[in-house]
Amino acid sequence: MKPAKFATARIITIGNELTTGLVADANARVVARFLLGRGYVVSRVVSVPDDEGEIIAEVREAVRSSDLVVVTGGLGPTHDDVTKTALCRLFKCKTKFQPAVLRRVRAFFKKIGKKTPEANRSYADVPTCAVAVRNDVGLARGLFFNGRVLALPGVPHEAERMLLTSAARLIRPGGTHVREFTFHTAGADETRLTDEMKGLAKATKFADVAFLPKLGNVDVRIVARGSTPKKASANMASAKRLLLDNIRRHVWGTGDQTIESVVGGMLKRAGQSLCVAESCTGGGIGKRVTSVPGSSEYFLGGATVYSNSAKTSLVGVPKKLLAKFGAVSGEAAAAMARGARKSFGADYAVSATGVAGPGGGTREKPVGLVFVAAADGRGETVRRLFIAGGRETVRERTTFEALFLLYEKLRRDAL
Amino acid sequence: MKPAKFATARIITIGNELTTGLVADANARVVARFLLGRGYVVSRVVSVPDDEGEIIAEVREAVRSSDLVVVTGGLGPTHDDVTKTALCRLFKCKTKFQPAVLRRVRAFFKKIGKKTPEANRSYADVPTCAVAVRNDVGLARGLFFNGRVLALPGVPHEAERMLLTSAARLIRPGGTHVREFTFHTAGADETRLTDEMKGLAKATKFADVAFLPKLGNVDVRIVARGSTPKKASANMASAKRLLLDNIRRHVWGTGDQTIESVVGGMLKRAGQSLCVAESCTGGGIGKRVTSVPGSSEYFLGGATVYSNSAKTSLVGVPKKLLAKFGAVSGEAAAAMARGARKSFGADYAVSATGVAGPGGGTREKPVGLVFVAAADGRGETVRRLFIAGGRETVRERTTFEALFLLYEKLRRDAL
Repeated sequence: MKPAKFATARIITIGNELTTGLVADANARVVARFLLGRGYVVSRVVSVPDDEGEIIAEVREAVRSSDLVVVTGGLGPTHDDVTKTALCRLFKCKTKFQPAVLRRVRAFFKKIGKKTPEANRSYADVPTCAVAVRNDVGLARGLFFNGRVLALPGVPHEAERMLLTSAARLIRPGGTHVREFTFHTAGADETRLTDEMKGLAKATKFADVAFLPKLGNVDVRIVARGSTPKKASANMASAKRLLLDNIRRHVWGTGDQTIESVVGGMLKRAGQSLCVAESCTGGGIGKRVTSVPGSSEYFLGGATVYSNSAKTSLVGVPKKLLAKFGAVSGEAAAAMARGARKSFGADYAVSATGVAGPGGGTREKPVGLVFVAAADGRGETVRRLFIAGGRETVRERTTFEALFLLYEKLRRDAL
Repeated sequence: MKPAKFATARIITIGNELTTGLVADANARVVARFLLGRGYVVSRVVSVPDDEGEIIAEVREAVRSSDLVVVTGGLGPTHDDVTKTALCRLFKCKTKFQPAVLRRVRAFFKKIGKKTPEANRSYADVPTCAVAVRNDVGLARGLFFNGRVLALPGVPHEAERMLLTSAARLIRPGGTHVREFTFHTAGADETRLTDEMKGLAKATKFADVAFLPKLGNVDVRIVARGSTPKKASANMASAKRLLLDNIRRHVWGTGDQTIESVVGGMLKRAGQSLCVAESCTGGGIGKRVTSVPGSSEYFLGGATVYSNSAKTSLVGVPKKLLAKFGAVSGEAAAAMARGARKSFGADYAVSATGVAGPGGGTREKPVGLVFVAAADGRGETVRRLFIAGGRETVRERTTFEALFLLYEKLRRDAL
């Protein structure tokens, strides 16, 4: 789908930390999602260093070639923050010292019991030709020049909050309506999904379809556009229908759902409780389960049994079993889940044990060999996996697979 | 420091998933670090959609204005991969079908027991005017046009591996030598660090200095350049000395160290063991501790005691104590650490309990109130914190603070 007649936007993120690879760009994604939702087609995301000349050149080019420009970063008071100066120079705009702004900054520092750093005076130098954009969660206000260039602070949660509130009110809609939808799938890789999708070519006439491989699963994301809300929704409905026919059996969730929120919802509705027993994941399964607000309603706790003695003392894995099969075995995984269920008095338990590497692998049990198990009152299900990749890849994917095994068990139990 | 005479580079990352905010750009950072180390100054990082015309325009502009261009993404076989076609058009270059490449692709699929998807034939259409760049961990080979434009696959671990191996050999050094160094600090925020740094202005004559605020701490990163290795090292040494005088007391680590690798190293050297007892972090402390390879040498395990009954049964927190002070209290944190030490038979224990939100807060115990504790044979140290931010911010920062408290204890014990 070629979105030719839609309003276009560019995103410019500013900071040496981006062009030298010190950090990944956290703002570009947030701004891009915002602009998509407001009906803009983003043609470029550009990161430039903290350099006045480079910033001016890039913003000038962006203004020339798009309807809206969103800039993030460089609005703070430290020596490398030059965005305000650069934009003032580009728009031939002076600054005026506003005592009220300085009073607000001083009040903030007083509240947290600190002296106002001298550099923070610069917040009070306000450009005369820009609209100030309120920041409820930080000191640097945003600036909106000529209804075309919006500058936001670089602190991600500040930029994000402003896009939801003060900045959102200033930006006019881009003239198109957008619908977004994501299917979360597991059990088929990207090329297999593409091969299976007889409807893909047809669906792309109604919407953009992207495949996003993740650890152990693939997201299928659909973006539909239309000149009216009704047309956008109709395009989305057509694309979804065409795709779902082919991928239904792989789908475990949609939209903002995660595997932990899906199993959490299932447990909550069934009034059942959960605990975990972890070895190679070291607490990562519990961490994900408890990332869901309200998870205390069904999650009782977890035992991270890294040492063999902890496996025995905390979740009652028999010493004999460990001696016979080893800590990385289907038998150990099943015993961990069974034992955790008893220790915590939970309805369900999941467990994981494996060789995460880089050391510790043997010929029989190489790095990447993992066992996950899920237990309920009727017994345990164990899955053997071989996961390629580094230590964190093995651990993250193991976490997903353990929760996915629980999902399959819960789905069967619900039928 | 103005790096005017150094070779310049641009990075272009390709994909609708980047310009629509579906994912954060993982490759830009990796490529930027690589180019920095090779002596290039990166003047722009640009993300463009999967659109032939946009790709051609951006690469053309990049070639015009810089010495080297690194492109990632769009080299795969699916319908939206158009980078190869775009670059061939830009460089007026044909493709030739190479049966040997198709055989390699087929062998790969045979090895994993799958049929070669039809679309994957396109890997064998090889541009005649580009040097193929070997990819040992995936199917899409890289392409190097005219010694100026390097195209790499978009899968992050493939791009990263190629930059370390096959692609690295093709790129000539940028003519400058670079030294990088990072101090990890805690206990002072960015503006306070800047205020304290009398030597900052002087240090920036020798190197670029960046402050990177993280959850609960600040990284101070130094990049020094020089026309010879010796000059680069001398500049780095001068900058480090000037800065360290001011920030020494805040520094807990350097370079690739993390708080978990630092405490891990201390425990290992002292021959001491560790366990954890977690509530609001749900397993996140254990996960971080075990992210360090070889952590099984000192980490025995953890108890994630989300429910009150688990707090009592797994780590022996007295019911009376919970009734009197509540689960979110300094007393509970201390009892959790003390109890975990006994349950696991460990030398040290850390614990965390708090209100992560968004629900569960009260007037007396609001969202963000957290207690962390560290225990050894001589008793427990407890720290009370109030952390602003959402659920994950509270949890991540709590994890850091628990490990930082352990760090302080270990450092005192070592003296």
